[in-house]
Amino acid sequence: MPKYVYGFTEGNKDLKELLGGKGANLAEMTNLGLPVPPGFTITTEACRRFLAGGGVPDGLWDEVDKHLHAMEDGMGKRLGAPGDPLLVSVRSGAKFSMPGMMETVLNIGLNDESVRGLAAQAGDERFAWDSYRRLIQMFGRTVLGIEGDRFEDAIERAKRHGGVTSDLELTAEDLRRLVRTFKDIVKDETGREFPEGPRVQMRMAVEAVFDSWNAPRAIVYRRQERIPADLGTAVNIVAMVFGNLGMDSGTGVAFTRDPGTGNQGVYGDYLQNAQGEDVVAGIRNTIPLQELEKIDASSYRELLGIMRTLENHYRDLCDIEFTIERGKLWMLQTRVGKRTAEAAFRIATQLVDQGLIDMDEALERVSGDQLAQLMFPRFAGHARLIPIAKGMNASPGAAVGRAVFSSERAEELTARGEEVILVRRETTPDDLAGMIAARGVLTSRGGKTSHAAVVARGMGKTCVCGAEQIEVDPAGRRFTAPGGVVVEEGELISIDGSTGEVYRGEVPVMASPVVQYFEGAGDTSDDLIQAVHRVMVHADERRRLAVRANADTPEDAARARGFGAEGIGLCRTEHMFLGERRRLVEDLILAVSGEERQAALDALEPLQRSDFAGIFAAMDGLPVTVRLIDPPLHEFLPDLTALSVKVALAGEQATARDRRLLAAVKRLHEENPMLGLRGVRLGLVIPGLFAMQVRAIAEAVAERRAAGGDPRAEIMIPLVGAVQELEHVRDEARGILAENGVEAAIGTMIEVPRAALTAGQIAEAAHFFSFGTNDLTQMTWGFSRDDVEAAFFSRYLELGVFGVSPFESIDRGGVGRLMSIAVEEGRAARPDLKIGICGEHGGDPESVRFCHDIGLDYVSCSPFRVPVARLEAGRAALPREESDSR
Amino acid sequence: MPKYVYGFTEGNKDLKELLGGKGANLAEMTNLGLPVPPGFTITTEACRRFLAGGGVPDGLWDEVDKHLHAMEDGMGKRLGAPGDPLLVSVRSGAKFSMPGMMETVLNIGLNDESVRGLAAQAGDERFAWDSYRRLIQMFGRTVLGIEGDRFEDAIERAKRHGGVTSDLELTAEDLRRLVRTFKDIVKDETGREFPEGPRVQMRMAVEAVFDSWNAPRAIVYRRQERIPADLGTAVNIVAMVFGNLGMDSGTGVAFTRDPGTGNQGVYGDYLQNAQGEDVVAGIRNTIPLQELEKIDASSYRELLGIMRTLENHYRDLCDIEFTIERGKLWMLQTRVGKRTAEAAFRIATQLVDQGLIDMDEALERVSGDQLAQLMFPRFAGHARLIPIAKGMNASPGAAVGRAVFSSERAEELTARGEEVILVRRETTPDDLAGMIAARGVLTSRGGKTSHAAVVARGMGKTCVCGAEQIEVDPAGRRFTAPGGVVVEEGELISIDGSTGEVYRGEVPVMASPVVQYFEGAGDTSDDLIQAVHRVMVHADERRRLAVRANADTPEDAARARGFGAEGIGLCRTEHMFLGERRRLVEDLILAVSGEERQAALDALEPLQRSDFAGIFAAMDGLPVTVRLIDPPLHEFLPDLTALSVKVALAGEQATARDRRLLAAVKRLHEENPMLGLRGVRLGLVIPGLFAMQVRAIAEAVAERRAAGGDPRAEIMIPLVGAVQELEHVRDEARGILAENGVEAAIGTMIEVPRAALTAGQIAEAAHFFSFGTNDLTQMTWGFSRDDVEAAFFSRYLELGVFGVSPFESIDRGGVGRLMSIAVEEGRAARPDLKIGICGEHGGDPESVRFCHDIGLDYVSCSPFRVPVARLEAGRAALPREESDSR
Repeated sequence: MPKYVYGFTEGNKDLKELLGGKGANLAEMTNLGLPVPPGFTITTEACRRFLAGGGVPDGLWDEVDKHLHAMEDGMGKRLGAPGDPLLVSVRSGAKFSMPGMMETVLNIGLNDESVRGLAAQAGDERFAWDSYRRLIQMFGRTVLGIEGDRFEDAIERAKRHGGVTSDLELTAEDLRRLVRTFKDIVKDETGREFPEGPRVQMRMAVEAVFDSWNAPRAIVYRRQERIPADLGTAVNIVAMVFGNLGMDSGTGVAFTRDPGTGNQGVYGDYLQNAQGEDVVAGIRNTIPLQELEKIDASSYRELLGIMRTLENHYRDLCDIEFTIERGKLWMLQTRVGKRTAEAAFRIATQLVDQGLIDMDEALERVSGDQLAQLMFPRFAGHARLIPIAKGMNASPGAAVGRAVFSSERAEELTARGEEVILVRRETTPDDLAGMIAARGVLTSRGGKTSHAAVVARGMGKTCVCGAEQIEVDPAGRRFTAPGGVVVEEGELISIDGSTGEVYRGEVPVMASPVVQYFEGAGDTSDDLIQAVHRVMVHADERRRLAVRANADTPEDAARARGFGAEGIGLCRTEHMFLGERRRLVEDLILAVSGEERQAALDALEPLQRSDFAGIFAAMDGLPVTVRLIDPPLHEFLPDLTALSVKVALAGEQATARDRRLLAAVKRLHEENPMLGLRGVRLGLVIPGLFAMQVRAIAEAVAERRAAGGDPRAEIMIPLVGAVQELEHVRDEARGILAENGVEAAIGTMIEVPRAALTAGQIAEAAHFFSFGTNDLTQMTWGFSRDDVEAAFFSRYLELGVFGVSPFESIDRGGVGRLMSIAVEEGRAARPDLKIGICGEHGGDPESVRFCHDIGLDYVSCSPFRVPVARLEAGRAALPREESDSR
Repeated sequence: MPKYVYGFTEGNKDLKELLGGKGANLAEMTNLGLPVPPGFTITTEACRRFLAGGGVPDGLWDEVDKHLHAMEDGMGKRLGAPGDPLLVSVRSGAKFSMPGMMETVLNIGLNDESVRGLAAQAGDERFAWDSYRRLIQMFGRTVLGIEGDRFEDAIERAKRHGGVTSDLELTAEDLRRLVRTFKDIVKDETGREFPEGPRVQMRMAVEAVFDSWNAPRAIVYRRQERIPADLGTAVNIVAMVFGNLGMDSGTGVAFTRDPGTGNQGVYGDYLQNAQGEDVVAGIRNTIPLQELEKIDASSYRELLGIMRTLENHYRDLCDIEFTIERGKLWMLQTRVGKRTAEAAFRIATQLVDQGLIDMDEALERVSGDQLAQLMFPRFAGHARLIPIAKGMNASPGAAVGRAVFSSERAEELTARGEEVILVRRETTPDDLAGMIAARGVLTSRGGKTSHAAVVARGMGKTCVCGAEQIEVDPAGRRFTAPGGVVVEEGELISIDGSTGEVYRGEVPVMASPVVQYFEGAGDTSDDLIQAVHRVMVHADERRRLAVRANADTPEDAARARGFGAEGIGLCRTEHMFLGERRRLVEDLILAVSGEERQAALDALEPLQRSDFAGIFAAMDGLPVTVRLIDPPLHEFLPDLTALSVKVALAGEQATARDRRLLAAVKRLHEENPMLGLRGVRLGLVIPGLFAMQVRAIAEAVAERRAAGGDPRAEIMIPLVGAVQELEHVRDEARGILAENGVEAAIGTMIEVPRAALTAGQIAEAAHFFSFGTNDLTQMTWGFSRDDVEAAFFSRYLELGVFGVSPFESIDRGGVGRLMSIAVEEGRAARPDLKIGICGEHGGDPESVRFCHDIGLDYVSCSPFRVPVARLEAGRAALPREESDSR
């Protein structure tokens, strides 16, 4: 039989798996000699056995009783004894904290008898009855599952009856009556009396914690966060200390430094004469922690000392919960604290300067996601404005526009050149057009996996969702916010997708200072910039992956180079066929004879050549991977439905070109263009098309070399699924390069599952591979991003089919497996094969890490994500232990 | 140094890899004591070394000379010696015969001197000069690459000059002049004299054979047939014997039994006073082999004896080439002969009856493709009709219809209820609509991989292509055939896709007797039916794979059962939503409230229930796999473009329902519906849809069981890519089954690459897998069949990207690899996992074999293909050696 119960002196912070985060840290503090009330932890193993069926495992209660006895002996009190009762709290504590689980029941051990003993011992009748009603209230809600409102309503009635406004003003007699009412509620709701037996209370609470592991919200959360479903939770049983024993008592939370900025100092809140849940519930206003110095200087000094101890010990920002009982300080919890992106960078470098950690560890303490947050534009002068509402920060950025309440209006106003924010209760696939038109999206319902959040993130559009304080009235074209604020359609609002704040009017947007720094224009005296700089320098030293950018113009190329890109991993050529050149592409498509076709190609060639020349100049000395044209040609023609309607309405008056175009559009129409005549297929079917592009590249290289430059072109063939396709194009391209006396690597995208599955063969004909993970994800899952993200991704996230969209982060089990096969078999066939990635995943932190792990040579991403990729590539290269990254 | 040359006494028929087919069989015949002229074979290894560069391998000519000397010694003649020259032929002979390679040069060793020796020895001046001009002509064309027409034209001029019509009438003097003319042509074309040295002639011919391995047509053929590019060819050098030494000489070809019907007897053609190429060239008319008995009874009897010997030795139909030189019979070649499908079945069972082979071998000697050919309808009374033209048998079947010459006319006439045959020079993607409308397609250009052939086969439509004798005049809407036949638009024609024949008028079509047999109505006294029956019985005994059918109606189910199906592997439910039920689906889609949606589902449920009840009854006692609805719902709505035009033209008069429908169509419109909201995604997004279907199945099962039946329903979820999707649907379905007190296996399609890649996880939640290889092929290659088959498959076949469309036969390297992964990892997770295939590949012979090899439990295919799958499943289960199947 395993050991199911650990006293606080028996555990330590590294036993989170077994004791949960809370239990492990309580043990750690106990062993550090800090004032932690006596207690013990029931292991996650006991919970797992309980959940496997058959009730509480044999021997658990015996072990609990043994530890309880030891605790009773140490304190000279018995649990719930009438004269001088020991009371305990029962608190859940899993390895990862998650919503939906039962949190805490305080004051276990009180009943109609022991409440009197407690009153006598404390010399405070009111305190005892207040504690008792808290027990029944918490026990009723969390263990017995009674709606919390029933208890709250009773308190409200009691306050009205007593003619008071604060619960502090309720008298002992009021509270005694409230206890009776609460017990009636329990009887009424459950059909049974509130359990008076102290051990029964404790055991029921423990089992309720176990059961809460499978609360629906917890299940969904675990699916989404990919937390294994069978970890189980630990349970902590701790001797009660009381912050509600008068004004010399109280409870508080604190951070060892500012979690918002990272600045050193004292940060926290304190509430006199209160128990823990009062701070969270916000019933009364807390006071800043500094003021504790005036109330209880000795406890304050002791607390500051403990905070220093904890920071030195954990070598990181800690957050803590504490209680003062009649002048005696007790530590109830600590953990490494959450922080903003800004704080993360400052704290990491501060700790290096303090000698607590080295630069490797500093690099580990920040993330690419945090750096990305620092790179979004933000509202200037935040401080002077008060938000009218706050929701969830669903998709970052800062957006300003006129409020609109329907997709149609969003499109209308945008067509007129207005910028709009789409405001909806929640969005559905019908709102897609409006979301595309809007600068940002605001909803009053739904969480971070709601339709609005998922789709907005997919579009890179600012979004605040679930702002529950606002009331959206689509029919009346307005929304109301707390305090009687009414915002009518057309009024300007500003939403902050990084904080979830909503402002009335136009808040000025300012560029990110971190972006200015990357652009060489930042204020280097700013300590945040200094911190970012130091971390980036270290990341660049550490990383093995090269970082390139996806860029199609000389301007983008230059910007990417500034952001640290070491070449271009994807230069798309299809964008070079837009604008006034579209007419030439139409000519190409409408060409009837080989001569007409060649004439259209001949007209395009010099334009392409100058496109390439500009990009090679901007990336002189660095590799530029040019992808030959990929999309189906009908993308360059008008839309079938629109043109059909136009020609039908024009009747006899329709122009000859429109008729010819319509015929061509119909001929080229594809049911599934993503799976149609595109990529290498175009090159093999349309004579001269790829040849024209390769010739333009070759001539641009020759030209620039003649001018003393160092152009490094690489030619990339899209959508290859079989080595034979590549061989045909390669052979033709080689000939053209040779004619021009230049050399260039010729490689292929790996973006069709078959390419990965036959990578060994394809590598024989390719100098390099570049994973096109957008297409590869679409084909591996069999869904098209444009079609399905709006239609069912939010439902899929809700159901836990995936924890994050596979278009955001590489799906390791499916797409990632294909990538691993391709890397392994490609390199086996050609050991010097260069391998990169140029899908959007190249800028996603998790995906960069994966690319490092499977041995890619480089990642390529949008210029803006280059610093993020550099940082994550550095982090990925750090020596790693089997650690939990949460 | 390897041995590069084998004398005929050193080889045998199993050395095809090294000696090529021709060389191996010549050696075999030599060892059997048959009269083969002396000779030897240069190995494929020598060719491989030559092709690897650096010319003829060291020592090859020494070895050749040694063998040549031995031959000279044996025959008492020297190669090309002036007085009594030995002459030889040089013939290519690879493991597989392929087009485009150099075939044969006869009479090597002749020159201006030895021609006189030959004349003296033969006592026939004319023969000697005829042999010499043949040498220069063949050598010039094949070794020196001179256009053959130049020589033919010279012969024509000589005949005109001599006032004769047949080459037999040319005199010795005519031929001597012709030799001079031919030599001038050689000088003129190559700038050099015709080589007089006998050894030079021989060596140049050998090198030309080596080089011809890389002739363009041979390269393309090898790609298409998946013949390795580096096998190389062998070269045979054989002492000449002469069929052109007078009327007591001649040359012929023969089969050991009728390759058309399989009947025993003497089948062959003979040509007096001729060399081999004359028979093939068709310059003079051959006589039936039987007539040889009257000309040369002794040789005839010897030949019949040799044919019996060969058949007993090879235990199969053989075809042979022979020459008679002044009454002496010589065997020049033999091989196992090609035969029709009908002959294959008859011969296989005849050989069993003769005790030459057992039933296993008989089963190996026939193929599913041959059985399929016997199952197509055919023209009745063939014999009495003379075709007006003949093309390639590109896609089998028999089609009758009015000739039309454009896609537009094909659509017009079809819309009027006419049946048409589309006649084009060649088809392009623009002809697609016409091909869909037509009953069959006839083209005058292009081979079996032309656009017309590929697309027609894909559609299962009869096609004759490359009928070069007809002249298509699309502008004049007519075609002309030899003999001044003119067929105008609208005239009835009949085309036979199994033979390539084209008839004027309507040829009556009759059902296949083999199909009638499978339907229980065949003439069992017919020996073909008896042969098929015996082979099928043996195949059923042998096979391990079960064979099911894809069927959606009770009628199809009953027919499939008749054809031997052991259950339904795919019962699609979407077809049950068409016709008058479409309105209910529209209601479902237009539903605004949950109640409206449920009402639509409630109306559909009893209809579904009765659908299922009928199918369960037809397949009583056998498994029926019902697939829940798969296609996107917009497939049940009108077309976007058509409806947009309709509403636009109607203007204010558009109906409310049309407007609502248009809005719904727009909302549900998808850019890539194949990658959209379909399959399991529909089930997870539309509440109640899958539940309705599962309930209908459960109730139909319960109903039928109550009535004493034995329904065996299996529920199949389409398009699953992640186990979580399947779990959600399975959990709901289980509940519904339990409510109805019935059980059913619940499984999933494997049709998305990710499903195969995560099969280990998915198997945990699935009772069975069924490969949907249509979708799996589309997603693995990244192309949609509907969009691309017409657009570029013919080009891809031409380029050798694939040898056969991956929609016809499973692409082993890509799709097949995913299947293997899924089988292996699925079974590892759940050893009793049942695995089948229900894509169209389930009826393709090559694919059935693959399914057997990777260990599937069953294949499922259209009812008509069930016998083919049974046969191939039996063949696949036979013990196999590493053998070449060609």
